[in-house]
Amino acid sequence: MDESLGEIGEFGLIAELTKLFPQGEHVLVGPGDDAAVLRVRTGHVVVSTDMMVEGRHFRRDWAPAADIGHRAAAANLSDINAMGGRATSLTVALAAPADLPVSWALEFAKGFADEAGLVGASVVGGDLTQADQVVVAVTVIGVCTVSPVLRSGAQVGDVVALAGRQGWAAGGLAVLGRGFRSPRVLVEAYRRPEPPYDAGGIAAEAGATAMIDVSDGLVADAGHVATASGVAIDLHRAAFEIPEPLHAVGAALGADPLQFILGGGDDHALLATFPDVASVPDGWLVVGGVGDGEGVTVDGDAFEGPSGWTHF
Amino acid sequence: MDESLGEIGEFGLIAELTKLFPQGEHVLVGPGDDAAVLRVRTGHVVVSTDMMVEGRHFRRDWAPAADIGHRAAAANLSDINAMGGRATSLTVALAAPADLPVSWALEFAKGFADEAGLVGASVVGGDLTQADQVVVAVTVIGVCTVSPVLRSGAQVGDVVALAGRQGWAAGGLAVLGRGFRSPRVLVEAYRRPEPPYDAGGIAAEAGATAMIDVSDGLVADAGHVATASGVAIDLHRAAFEIPEPLHAVGAALGADPLQFILGGGDDHALLATFPDVASVPDGWLVVGGVGDGEGVTVDGDAFEGPSGWTHF
Repeated sequence: MDESLGEIGEFGLIAELTKLFPQGEHVLVGPGDDAAVLRVRTGHVVVSTDMMVEGRHFRRDWAPAADIGHRAAAANLSDINAMGGRATSLTVALAAPADLPVSWALEFAKGFADEAGLVGASVVGGDLTQADQVVVAVTVIGVCTVSPVLRSGAQVGDVVALAGRQGWAAGGLAVLGRGFRSPRVLVEAYRRPEPPYDAGGIAAEAGATAMIDVSDGLVADAGHVATASGVAIDLHRAAFEIPEPLHAVGAALGADPLQFILGGGDDHALLATFPDVASVPDGWLVVGGVGDGEGVTVDGDAFEGPSGWTHF
Repeated sequence: MDESLGEIGEFGLIAELTKLFPQGEHVLVGPGDDAAVLRVRTGHVVVSTDMMVEGRHFRRDWAPAADIGHRAAAANLSDINAMGGRATSLTVALAAPADLPVSWALEFAKGFADEAGLVGASVVGGDLTQADQVVVAVTVIGVCTVSPVLRSGAQVGDVVALAGRQGWAAGGLAVLGRGFRSPRVLVEAYRRPEPPYDAGGIAAEAGATAMIDVSDGLVADAGHVATASGVAIDLHRAAFEIPEPLHAVGAALGADPLQFILGGGDDHALLATFPDVASVPDGWLVVGGVGDGEGVTVDGDAFEGPSGWTHF
């Protein structure tokens, strides 16, 4: 379709979009009424929301629409993962200029729904309106079968562990920012992250004391856990495995590849604390420890690289 | 505070904002973690989302920030009202230029939280980011104690009834659009709607067969019910009570005041269908009937005025 949003109109596009969103068994009423209706069993419902702005969180010339859809869903599903929960439902609101091609919106929606499908979540509602920039707002709802794992539970003596790829997306972003398209594996990691969706629930079952989705940057998010828990976290350089493509990008850009790992945030890895090494589940890498005090250090020293992303 | 968002920073403002959001008993974890945690009893959870864009859904020069906050919350709470449910939790995402005054964001948040408080709902999460325009995305979560009332249940022979003020906000908007500030009661109705929050649950208990929040315009939203239910709806001009200030605005602008009622949508009135006049609860005004066929007529004829608002 080469039509624009202005040509197809709000209701026309909504009709096309909703065809792309299969509804799970727990969805009693999907998109199209004043509200969606979900069947919920007694327990803990977890809710999170995120907003992505064109030119700030994504660029239409850097990634296909489907990948931007995957990323938008992944960022939100990952927040439920970080509570130890399972996402069941998402809403997505899209603001866009009238000249946005309908095909972009449909490809975005397809990528979004496909990512949601990875964890069995349904897109149950949304909104569509006009704005100068593309803005996407997503809310995700999930359930926890065990107690949700908060940021505030880390204890002195805990070990710090990481699940999922970390630094790959930051490497890809650095490459794209300089006008390159390779190493392709890093660019793909940025365009379409692969969050470790099973890791959150497994960590919760294993007794994780605190957990967070790495989205602001590893050191920054470790800092959020340290602050919320009233503890200090030390990360150990030697613990990280630096993948070959990050070595290559580091050499090409004259950067320490560990900076991508310590400062990057777009992979949606999980960072958690556990009472001891024995309780760290398979698939998690021990990368540090929890001590008395405050803030985050790397091998005992302050981190000198970019510590994370702020929006103002 | 005369600081801008760029000066106070994302985390600084979030800390200020969360102080404005009291948390209800059903909120186990409020803003500040990867997700909020809600206690839910087995039943029907209803979810809706809306996005408002500066210059399109609101103008900062037409209403104080607190009023825009009230309106943003009201629009979403009203969607839960239209299901016959009770809103319990909201998330709000705000994108804004870096030069937006912090005081605007705080006043907006205060108005938003105050409106949520009218129904006992808590603001449990949010996001804050930078964009060229102010964009607000809200998701509301509620519960239904009886079966949710959908748009699709209207039956031939039902009566159509309306709860809440209708047309007042459209009159206020027409006045503001021409640079006037009075009649003040209409301008206030636009700036701070007063949705009939008790009416939805009462209608559900009374056996409403279909219900919708009037947000696109009365005729347009009656059309959504007609289409979803596979019926025709006829509205009766004589049934509507035209308030004095709408007569005044109609005379001043050379418009039929009934146009504001039939075409307007910002009051968040509820439109519902009931099996007969006897089942229509107090506080609801019978304004039409349901028949065989499709679409909406007014006294049997097509409606010639503006039928509603579309975003592209």
